[in-house]
Amino acid sequence: RVHMRGKPIDPNVNVEILARRTPGFVGADLENLINEAALLAAQRKKKQITIDELEEAIDRVIAGPERKSKVVSEEERRTVAYHEIGHAIVGAVLPNADPVHKISIVPRGMHVLGFTLQLPMKDKYLMSKEEILDRLAGMLGGRAAEELVFNKITTGASNDLENATKIAKDMVCRYGMSDKIGPVSWGEDNGGEVFLGKQIARMPNYSEETASTIDQEIKRIIEESYKRAFDILKKYRDKMNDIAKILLEKETIEGEELDKLLKGELELDHNGNDTKVKDVARENN
Amino acid sequence: RVHMRGKPIDPNVNVEILARRTPGFVGADLENLINEAALLAAQRKKKQITIDELEEAIDRVIAGPERKSKVVSEEERRTVAYHEIGHAIVGAVLPNADPVHKISIVPRGMHVLGFTLQLPMKDKYLMSKEEILDRLAGMLGGRAAEELVFNKITTGASNDLENATKIAKDMVCRYGMSDKIGPVSWGEDNGGEVFLGKQIARMPNYSEETASTIDQEIKRIIEESYKRAFDILKKYRDKMNDIAKILLEKETIEGEELDKLLKGELELDHNGNDTKVKDVARENN
Amino acid sequence: RVHMRGKPIDPNVNVEILARRTPGFVGADLENLINEAALLAAQRKKKQITIDELEEAIDRVIAGPERKSKVVSEEERRTVAYHEIGHAIVGAVLPNADPVHKISIVPRGMHVLGFTLQLPMKDKYLMSKEEILDRLAGMLGGRAAEELVFNKITTGASNDLENATKIAKDMVCRYGMSDKIGPVSWGEDNGGEVFLGKQIARMPNYSEETASTIDQEIKRIIEESYKRAFDILKKYRDKMNDIAKILLEKETIEGEELDKLLKGELELDHNGNDTKVKDVARENN
Amino acid sequence: RVHMRGKPIDPNVNVEILARRTPGFVGADLENLINEAALLAAQRKKKQITIDELEEAIDRVIAGPERKSKVVSEEERRTVAYHEIGHAIVGAVLPNADPVHKISIVPRGMHVLGFTLQLPMKDKYLMSKEEILDRLAGMLGGRAAEELVFNKITTGASNDLENATKIAKDMVCRYGMSDKIGPVSWGEDNGGEVFLGKQIARMPNYSEETASTIDQEIKRIIEESYKRAFDILKKYRDKMNDIAKILLEKETIEGEELDKLLKGELELDHNGNDTKVKDVARENN
Amino acid sequence: RVHMRGKPIDPNVNVEILARRTPGFVGADLENLINEAALLAAQRKKKQITIDELEEAIDRVIAGPERKSKVVSEEERRTVAYHEIGHAIVGAVLPNADPVHKISIVPRGMHVLGFTLQLPMKDKYLMSKEEILDRLAGMLGGRAAEELVFNKITTGASNDLENATKIAKDMVCRYGMSDKIGPVSWGEDNGGEVFLGKQIARMPNYSEETASTIDQEIKRIIEESYKRAFDILKKYRDKMNDIAKILLEKETIEGEELDKLLKGELELDHNGNDTKVKDVARENN
Amino acid sequence: RVHMRGKPIDPNVNVEILARRTPGFVGADLENLINEAALLAAQRKKKQITIDELEEAIDRVIAGPERKSKVVSEEERRTVAYHEIGHAIVGAVLPNADPVHKISIVPRGMHVLGFTLQLPMKDKYLMSKEEILDRLAGMLGGRAAEELVFNKITTGASNDLENATKIAKDMVCRYGMSDKIGPVSWGEDNGGEVFLGKQIARMPNYSEETASTIDQEIKRIIEESYKRAFDILKKYRDKMNDIAKILLEKETIEGEELDKLLKGELELDHNGNDTKVKDVARENN
Repeated sequence: RVHMRGKPIDPNVNVEILARRTPGFVGADLENLINEAALLAAQRKKKQITIDELEEAIDRVIAGPERKSKVVSEEERRTVAYHEIGHAIVGAVLPNADPVHKISIVPRGMHVLGFTLQLPMKDKYLMSKEEILDRLAGMLGGRAAEELVFNKITTGASNDLENATKIAKDMVCRYGMSDKIGPVSWGEDNGGEVFLGKQIARMPNYSEETASTIDQEIKRIIEESYKRAFDILKKYRDKMNDIAKILLEKETIEGEELDKLLKGELELDHNGNDTKVKDVARENN
Repeated sequence: RVHMRGKPIDPNVNVEILARRTPGFVGADLENLINEAALLAAQRKKKQITIDELEEAIDRVIAGPERKSKVVSEEERRTVAYHEIGHAIVGAVLPNADPVHKISIVPRGMHVLGFTLQLPMKDKYLMSKEEILDRLAGMLGGRAAEELVFNKITTGASNDLENATKIAKDMVCRYGMSDKIGPVSWGEDNGGEVFLGKQIARMPNYSEETASTIDQEIKRIIEESYKRAFDILKKYRDKMNDIAKILLEKETIEGEELDKLLKGELELDHNGNDTKVKDVARENN
Repeated sequence: RVHMRGKPIDPNVNVEILARRTPGFVGADLENLINEAALLAAQRKKKQITIDELEEAIDRVIAGPERKSKVVSEEERRTVAYHEIGHAIVGAVLPNADPVHKISIVPRGMHVLGFTLQLPMKDKYLMSKEEILDRLAGMLGGRAAEELVFNKITTGASNDLENATKIAKDMVCRYGMSDKIGPVSWGEDNGGEVFLGKQIARMPNYSEETASTIDQEIKRIIEESYKRAFDILKKYRDKMNDIAKILLEKETIEGEELDKLLKGELELDHNGNDTKVKDVARENN
Repeated sequence: RVHMRGKPIDPNVNVEILARRTPGFVGADLENLINEAALLAAQRKKKQITIDELEEAIDRVIAGPERKSKVVSEEERRTVAYHEIGHAIVGAVLPNADPVHKISIVPRGMHVLGFTLQLPMKDKYLMSKEEILDRLAGMLGGRAAEELVFNKITTGASNDLENATKIAKDMVCRYGMSDKIGPVSWGEDNGGEVFLGKQIARMPNYSEETASTIDQEIKRIIEESYKRAFDILKKYRDKMNDIAKILLEKETIEGEELDKLLKGELELDHNGNDTKVKDVARENN
Repeated sequence: RVHMRGKPIDPNVNVEILARRTPGFVGADLENLINEAALLAAQRKKKQITIDELEEAIDRVIAGPERKSKVVSEEERRTVAYHEIGHAIVGAVLPNADPVHKISIVPRGMHVLGFTLQLPMKDKYLMSKEEILDRLAGMLGGRAAEELVFNKITTGASNDLENATKIAKDMVCRYGMSDKIGPVSWGEDNGGEVFLGKQIARMPNYSEETASTIDQEIKRIIEESYKRAFDILKKYRDKMNDIAKILLEKETIEGEELDKLLKGELELDHNGNDTKVKDVARENN
Repeated sequence: RVHMRGKPIDPNVNVEILARRTPGFVGADLENLINEAALLAAQRKKKQITIDELEEAIDRVIAGPERKSKVVSEEERRTVAYHEIGHAIVGAVLPNADPVHKISIVPRGMHVLGFTLQLPMKDKYLMSKEEILDRLAGMLGGRAAEELVFNKITTGASNDLENATKIAKDMVCRYGMSDKIGPVSWGEDNGGEVFLGKQIARMPNYSEETASTIDQEIKRIIEESYKRAFDILKKYRDKMNDIAKILLEKETIEGEELDKLLKGELELDHNGNDTKVKDVARENN
C-alpha cells in the first residue's frame, strides 16, 4: 500500500513496520515521505533508500526538518527533555496507551523543540472509556513532568491541553462517558454547518445550565487525568532522571534501547500497583 | 413499485417482503440496490438475480460492502456482538418496537463493525408516547449491553446516543410528551431557516429557564429509557450469551433462526411481566 | 367573486355558501378549486359542475386527494376519529369558536389522516381575548380527546400544538392579553428582518427575565385552554362515542347531520353550564 | 408649500389649515393627496377641488378609501367607536396631548375600522417627559376604553401597544427619563448597522441586568400611562356614552362639533382636578 | 494650512485663530468652510472674505444654515438657552474643560435649536481621569440646567447622553479608570471587525458578570458627573439668569463679552471651593 | 541575514547586534529599515550608512519619524517620561524581563509621545509562568509610574492594558496557568474562523460560569502584576527622579549610560529582596 513505485528502495525495508509508524498518513503524506527519503538518499550519496532515510523522512513529515543550528538554551533543552519523557513514561505505564517508540529533542521546523513518536499496537475501531482516560493521562504527562521536575509550568504544553480538552469534551458530549450528563448527546447537530468553507455560528443546542455541567465535567476529567499522570511520574522520578541524562546527551532515543529504558523496571499499571488509577476509572464509570 | 425493469430477476422473489425490508428507501436507493444485486449475480455467475443477491445488496446499501479482511480485535468483535444483541433483545421484548430480522458483525464500509436490521411491521402514521419510549429503549439497548456484559462503555454508541437525543427532544419540544413542558411547542418556527443551503443561526425562541427544563426532561427520558433497556437485558443475561456464541461463530443470524432465538422463550413485556415499564410510561403520561 | 368564468356550473350552486366554506382562499386557490371540480365532473361524466364536485374539490385543495387505498391500522383510525371529534365538540360548545361543518377520516395526500372543516360565521376584524381562548381550546380539543379516550397521546397533535403556541405567544407579546406582561408589546420590531429571502437572527428585544415570564404565560394559557377542552369533552364523553360510531362507519359526516349530532343535546357553554370556563376567562382578564 | 400646481383649487381653501392637518406628510404624500382630491372632484362633477374633496383625500391617504360595504358586526362597530372615543377624550383632557379634530368609524382600506385625526397645535422640537407621558396615555386610551366599557380587550390595540412600547423604550434608553436607568444612553451605537439594506444582529450593548431593568421600567411606564388613561375615562364615563351615541349614528364627527363635545364640559387635567396625573409625573421625575 | 487658495481673503484674518476654532476639521470641511464664506461675501457684496463671513461659515458647517424663520415656541427658546448656558458655565468652572467661546440659540439646519462652541486651549495627547471627568460634567451641564431651572427634562439632551455614555464606557473598558474593573481592557479585540463596510456582530469578549459590573460603573460615573454639573449650576443659579436674559435677547454671545460674563465672578473649581469634585475624583481613583 | 544588498553600509556595523535590536522584524520590515537608513544617510550627506542612521531607522520603523515640532505640554512630557521610566525600571529589576536598552520621549509619528526599546537577551521558545508574570509587570510599569508619581492615571496606558489583558487571557485559557481553571484549554477551536478575511462571530465554546471564572482570573493576574510593578517602583522612587531629570533634558537615553543608570544600584529581584514577588508566583502556581 505504501507509495514506493519508481524509486530504488532497499529491499530489506520492512514495509509493514513502516506503515505502522505512519498512522493517520494519507496518500499525499506518503508521497511526501518517499520524496523526502529520496532527497536524503541523494544527499547522502546512497544508491538505495534505506530504513535510515525513511525514518528521518517520517520525522520530517511529522515535525519538520532538523534545525540543529537553532539556539536553544540549556534550560529549554532540559524542560523539553523531561516534557517528552513525561509523555513516554505515562504512555509506558498505562495499559491502554499506545507505546512510545522514539523520543527526540532535536529542534525541528519553526516551533518544534522535541517530540515523541507513538505507534498504535493495532488499529482501533472502538475506544472504551478506560482507554480514552489512559490517552488523556499520556497527553498530560508532558506538562505533569514539567511541574514535577522543575516546579514550574511553561507555554510548551498548550497544544497538549487543547487536544486533551477536545477529547474530554467528546467524552462528555458525544460518548455519554460522564455520569452527570448521562447517555445524552449534546451539541452535535450543528457540527456540520459550513459557510464559505468554514464552520460558522456553532451555537450550542443546550441550556446554560447544561453548558455549565459540561464544563465542570470536562474540568474534572482533565484534572483527574493530570493527577494520574503526575502520580505515575512521581513514582518513577529516578527513572526520569536516568532517561533524561541519556536523552540530553544523545538527543534521540529509539527502538529497543527506549523499550528497555522505559519498560525494564516499570510495573504495568494494570497489574494492581496503582490503585489510584482504578479508583478514578470506577468513580467515572 | 420496486425498480426492477430490464434486469432478469428470479420470479420467486417476493417483492412485497423485499419492500418491507427497505423502509425509508427512495427511488435512487432502490436503483442502487438493483445495480448492486446485478453486479453480485454477475460475480457469482448467476443468470438471474436471486433473493440472496438482493439481501446482500440491501446490506451493502445500508452499511457498505463487506470488509472481512479488516483486522478487528477479538475484544472488539465481542463488544460489537453484544452491542447488536442488546438492540435485538430489547426490540423483541418491548411490544411497540419494530422486530429485528437480522444481526451481523461482519465489518462493512469504513466504520461499520456490525448492524441490526429492523423491519417495521406496518406503516405508521401516528406514534404514541409509549411507542416512542419503546423505540428509545431499543436504540439504547446496544450501549446498555456493553455496560451490562463488560462493565465498560465505548465510543461505539455515539450514533445511538445522538439519534436518541434527537427523538427525546422532539418528544419534549414538538409532541408535548413531557409533563413539565406540557402541550406547548418550543423552538419550531426557526426550523426552516436556511442560508446557502445550510441552516444557520437556529436561535431558540424560548428563555434560558425553558431551555433548562427542556434539557432536564431530555435527560430524564433518555436515562429512564436506558434503565429500561438495562433492566430488560439483565433479565435475559443468559439468553444474550446463547445468541452471542452463535453470532460470534456465524457472524450473521437472520430470518426464522433469529426469531426463534429471540422470541422462543422471551415473555413479551406487555404481558405484565415487567411492571417497571408500565411505571415509567405512567409516570411520564 | 368566485372564479367560475367559462365553466359550466350548476346554477343551483349557492356561491355565497361556497365562499363561506373557503375562508382564507386567495385567487389561485379558487382557480385551483374550480379546476379540481371540473376534472371531477368530467370523471363522473356530468355536464355541469354540481355542489358535490365543488365540495370534494374544497377538501382536495385543503387536505389533498383521497387515498382510500392507504393502509391505516384500526387503532390509528380510532385515534384519528376521536381526535377530530374532539375538535368538533369543543368548537360546538364554546360560544366564540367557529362551528364545524364537516369531519372526515378519509386519508388524504401524504400525511393527512383526518380533518375538520370550520366555517367562520362572519368575517372578523377584531378578536377579543375570550374569542381567542375559545379558539385555543378548540385547537387543543384533538389532543385532549386522545388523552381522555385512550389515556395516551400521539405525535398527531404536533401541528395543533405549534399553532396554539404561536397564538398564545401573540396574546402575550402583541395583544397585551397577559396580566403579568401587561399592555406592553415585546419582540415585534425584529419581525420583518429578512436575509436572502429568509428571516435571520430574530433576536428578541427583551431581557432573559422578560423571556422567562413570557414562556410561563404561554405555558399557563396553553395548559388552561387544554384543561378547558378536556373538561368539556369529559362532560360529553358519551356523545363522543355516538359520533365516533357513525364516523368510523361513514368516514365523513357533514351538514345538517353533523349539526344535529353536535348541537342536538349540547348546552352552549355561555348559558352558564360551565362555570370553569368563565373562571378561566375572568382570571385572565 | 402644498403641491397644487396645475389643478383648479377653490381659492377659499385655507392652505395653512390644510398643512396643519397633514403633519409628517412628505412631498409624495402631498402629490398623492392632490391627485385623490382631483379624482373625487371629477367623480362629483365639480369644477374646482373644494375643501370637502381635500379633507376626504387626507383620510384616504392616511387610512385608505372608504369601504362602507364592508360587513362589520354591530359589536365590532361599538368596540371601535369607544376605542376611538377613548383616544379622543384622553387627548382632550391631558394638557400636552395634541387635540383630536376628527373621529371616524367608517371602515377604510383592508384593515382600518376607525381612526382619530390629531392636529399638532404647533411644530415641536423638544418634548418634555410630561409631554411624552401625556402622549403615551393618549395612545393607550383606546385599549383603556375597551376594558372600561366592555370589560374585555381585543386585538385591535396591538398597533397602539407597539408604538407605546417603542416610545417608552426611547424614554428609558435614549432620553434618560427613567430614574432607575438615569441619564445613561443604552443600546444606541448599534442602531445604524445595516446588512444588504436591512438591520442585522442588533445586539444590545449592555448586560442582562441592565436589560432587565430597562424592561421593568418600560413596563412601569406603560402600565402607569394605561392607568392614567383608564382613570380619566372612568371620570368621563357618561360623556363617552353621549359621544358614542352620536358617533355610531353619524359615523364621523369633526371640527367644532367635536370640540364642543370633547371640551364643553371637560376640565383640563392641569387645572388641578386630577391629582393622580401629577403624582405619576412627579414619581417619574 | 487652511485651504484658501485662489479666493480673496481679508489679509487681516488671523489664520491661526481660525484654525483653533475648527478642531477636528479635515480637508473637505475646510474646503466647505471657504466656499460658504465666499458665498456669504458675494451675498453681502463684499470684495474680500472677512472674519465675519468666516465665522458665520464655521457655524454653518458645524450646525447648518440659520433658520430664523423657524417657529420655535418661547418655552422651547428658554429651554434651549438655559441648556446651552449649562454647558458653558460648567465648562468655565471646571479647570480641565475646554473653554466655551460662543453660545447661540439661532435655529440652524433641520434639528439644531442652539449650540456652544468650545475651543481647545491646546492640542492634547494624554487625557487624565480628572480631565475626562470634567469633560463629562460639561457634556451633562445642558441636561442639568434643564432640570435645575425648569424642573423638567426634555428629549433635547439625547445626543449629550449618548456621547457621555460612550466616553464613560471607554474610561471603564479601555483606560482602566474604574476601580471595580481595574487596569484590565475589555471588549477591544472585536473592535476592528468589519463586514461589507459595517461592523458586525460585535460580541463582547467577557462574561455577563463583567458586563454587569461595566454597566454599573458606567452608570456611577455618569450619575456622579451629572451631580457635579448640577451642583455647580446650583451655585451659579443667578449668573445663569443674567446670561439667559442677554442670550434670549441677542440670540448669540461670543468672544470677550462671553468671557466676561462667564468668568467675571466665577471661582475656578480647582481653587478649593468645591470639595465635592475632589471627593468624586478621589473616590474613583 | 539582514537585507543590505546593493547599499553601501559601513563595514564596522555589527550586524548581529542590529539583528538583536529588531526582534519580530520580518523581511519587509528589514527592507523598510534599510531604505530609511539610506535616505537618512543621503540627507546627512554621508557616503556610507553608519550605525547612527541604522539606529534612527529602527526607531522610525517601530514608532514613526521624529516630530520635534509637535507641541507637547510640559505636563505631558513629564507624564510620558515617568511612564517610560516605569517600564524600564520594572524591566530591569525583574529577573525574567527583557532588558531595556533605550528610552525616548521624542514625539514620533501621529500618536507616539515616547517609547522604550527592549532587546531580548536570547530567542525564547518556551515561556514559564514566572517569565510571563514578569513581562506583565513590565508592561504595567508605565501606568504604575503615572499613579505613583502623579497620583493620577491617563489614557496613555490603554495600549499596555490591552496587551496585558490579552496575555493574561492566554495564561488562563491556553496555557493552563490559572489554578481555578486548571490545565484546560478554553475557547481555542473557534480561533481560526474567518469570513471575508475577518474573524466572525467568535462565540466562546464555554458556559457563562466558566466565562465568569476566566474574567476573575484575568482580573486577579492583571491586578497582582500591577501591584508588583507599583511596589517595585515605590522602592526605587528616588532613582526614578534621577533618570527623569536626565531624560527630560536629553530626551533619549541609551546604551551603557542607560545600563548604568538602571542597574547601577538596583538589586535584582530574584536575589530575595522582594518576597512579595515569590508569594505571587507561589500563590498562582
